[in-house]
Amino acid sequence: MTETRAPLASLVTVGNELLYGQTVDTNAAWLGRSLAQLGFRVTRTFTVGDDPGPIQAAVGSAMEDADLVLVSGGLGPTPDDLTKAAVAQLLGREIGLDEELLQKLAARFRAAGYDRLPTPNRSQAEVPQGSIVLNNPQGTAPGLGLETDSCLVVMLPGVPRELRSIFEGDLTHLLRRRFARRLEPVQHRTIHTTGVPESRLSELVSQLLPRDMGPVSLAFLPDLRGVDLRLTARGVAIEEGEAWLTRIEAALEPVVSKWRFEAESGDVAEALNHALAGAGMTVATAESCTGGLVAKRITDRPGSSEVFVGGVIAYADAVKVEQLGVSPEDLREHGAVSEPVALQMAKGVRERFGASAGVGITGVAGPEGGTPEKPVGTVWIALAVADMAEARLVRLPGDRDAVRERAAQAVLGWLHRKVSGREQGR
Amino acid sequence: MTETRAPLASLVTVGNELLYGQTVDTNAAWLGRSLAQLGFRVTRTFTVGDDPGPIQAAVGSAMEDADLVLVSGGLGPTPDDLTKAAVAQLLGREIGLDEELLQKLAARFRAAGYDRLPTPNRSQAEVPQGSIVLNNPQGTAPGLGLETDSCLVVMLPGVPRELRSIFEGDLTHLLRRRFARRLEPVQHRTIHTTGVPESRLSELVSQLLPRDMGPVSLAFLPDLRGVDLRLTARGVAIEEGEAWLTRIEAALEPVVSKWRFEAESGDVAEALNHALAGAGMTVATAESCTGGLVAKRITDRPGSSEVFVGGVIAYADAVKVEQLGVSPEDLREHGAVSEPVALQMAKGVRERFGASAGVGITGVAGPEGGTPEKPVGTVWIALAVADMAEARLVRLPGDRDAVRERAAQAVLGWLHRKVSGREQGR
Repeated sequence: MTETRAPLASLVTVGNELLYGQTVDTNAAWLGRSLAQLGFRVTRTFTVGDDPGPIQAAVGSAMEDADLVLVSGGLGPTPDDLTKAAVAQLLGREIGLDEELLQKLAARFRAAGYDRLPTPNRSQAEVPQGSIVLNNPQGTAPGLGLETDSCLVVMLPGVPRELRSIFEGDLTHLLRRRFARRLEPVQHRTIHTTGVPESRLSELVSQLLPRDMGPVSLAFLPDLRGVDLRLTARGVAIEEGEAWLTRIEAALEPVVSKWRFEAESGDVAEALNHALAGAGMTVATAESCTGGLVAKRITDRPGSSEVFVGGVIAYADAVKVEQLGVSPEDLREHGAVSEPVALQMAKGVRERFGASAGVGITGVAGPEGGTPEKPVGTVWIALAVADMAEARLVRLPGDRDAVRERAAQAVLGWLHRKVSGREQGR
Repeated sequence: MTETRAPLASLVTVGNELLYGQTVDTNAAWLGRSLAQLGFRVTRTFTVGDDPGPIQAAVGSAMEDADLVLVSGGLGPTPDDLTKAAVAQLLGREIGLDEELLQKLAARFRAAGYDRLPTPNRSQAEVPQGSIVLNNPQGTAPGLGLETDSCLVVMLPGVPRELRSIFEGDLTHLLRRRFARRLEPVQHRTIHTTGVPESRLSELVSQLLPRDMGPVSLAFLPDLRGVDLRLTARGVAIEEGEAWLTRIEAALEPVVSKWRFEAESGDVAEALNHALAGAGMTVATAESCTGGLVAKRITDRPGSSEVFVGGVIAYADAVKVEQLGVSPEDLREHGAVSEPVALQMAKGVRERFGASAGVGITGVAGPEGGTPEKPVGTVWIALAVADMAEARLVRLPGDRDAVRERAAQAVLGWLHRKVSGREQGR
């Protein structure tokens, strides 16, 4: 254990559903990661039920040695939301109506078409004396900060989306200001890859990694969509850490360049849209087994209307024929999951939608529909770009969800490599 | 809070990776569920790092009010596995070699092709005095039970597969024997709703809820897609609990019936597909702002090809006109996000794809594209069923993701209510 001046943080997560495991506590993990990145040391996490006594006991115990106590959950408008009252009582604060917050809440509900603020929501404008109100861009329960002599106690709603948006907005500003000089940030650099299996990547990387990694450690983070390489520098000044990270990243570049993509979101669709826009290209999609997932992934990204024209989800064979011009003879002879059908889907949607690139995808997602020749996981993906059209057979493991995710990712990654010039022809 | 004789359990999960969120603590959730099912009340969970002091503090604190303390993690053979020594010291037990365990371990390694027991693994045959050794069918670290005057302390390895197999085997036997008469199993019933906000539902429910809830408590579990009502019965025999749950559920039925759906997955698309199949109907989708998400949700469900024909993602206006027959004049006059366009999308896709129902959806998902009249979150949803066509304006809060999720859910929920006869006309 190295001696550290880094501020100490403890978490208290509240909810019977956490104790009884109906909900897995992803907030604790997300907050732990985020606090570490900001430069806190996380010492303890407590989970308690929706019950004032245990909430107070946990917060009190956390306050004994932490500089920051984050309490999540139990801030909603219903009677089982008890956190605010319990913490206020523990810290000896009266609860009063915050007029400004009430106006904001009322405005929010008016905008949503309500003629009045529902009674239960009125309670969300009531805050403990001296609260620092933290804006919640995603919901009606604000975050609340309370300073004590020794420590800052912050309450956040338990809905992950709301908790995260408050943390990333007002709370990060507050923590940076309040703990400025003591924060000891952990520096990360992430290299996103897709299209190469973890085991192969690990083999290649181990051949190139410098013997002296300095303060940097490397982790492989695989998921259904690809493998992230995460470089982490700890315990050194920012500039020195950056220099080390840059050096190690450069050493890995020859291995990863073909599979790598750059995207703040970690989503290859972001890189794809950027590459398409840079090349002045547009794309249209023709999907069968993925049922709209490829289009959804592309349109997840803000600004996608610049590069995405539209698509057809051709679930029924009649739709493949009528909307995309797939040949009924090929459907009969080769089946819907076949090279000619995938190619004709990609070419058909490109032409009919007037896009520069067309995507075709047809496969067996399961659980039903597999045959000995075409088992579940058999997917044909196709690209039509300018006068080139090409199809590939992929065989994907996993259940229906996994096959669909992997199939969409395979075609998005392929199109990205193609458009960004990482892959020519076959 | 009803008085209970059920034994109280607390959890202590150990590992730096949990505190820093590199691993989500699924063990805590799994153990919570399993203990509740056995009939324990789970009161608190502590998470601490790989550090003897905090491990002892947490176990000591948990022992103050629990009948059972389960400690998971830190039982492996490597130097950062400190749980056994820390707990033994806390309880004042010497650690000694268990010969029987050593023989078993050695046999296990011989069977795996080793000629001798690796030195680090020898430590796994060393146990605190008086330990109840719990067989680990999946690995080398056994579970260890220690009786004190007031409580049973059990240590389990943190590898989920190993932890679960010990729990389901020797530990369940031990707990049933030790706490036999006091165990009080927990029964749940979940009512899924969508289309009604939590605050409104809570208001309605509070008017109908019987004053005497007996052993049943009610929790509201909201997310982007809707609100689940979870009824929990505790502290009574199974038959009595079931009777109470049925009674409370019946009392709530008049409030929830319009918004309720039945789906094992909790996804309204499952209920929708089932209702469509039951009515001998099919559906086709025409999406703009949701970019394929509605079709993806429908096709997420196995067997969706029975009811889903296909869809058009009409991102560009030209696609709306050419593929769906939307009137260029209406597009010019009212804009793409408008009632006539949504209606024509739903009718157009229904007709061209030969489906019994058509869905149309067009809106401003953001972050760009909002105007004072049509801010981000403005979405028109439309249904065309038989000779009826109807559009609704919804104003949805949140970021791009949230608007898209909520818009897709709004139209899926509406179609489900329509097809299942919960909603007629306006």
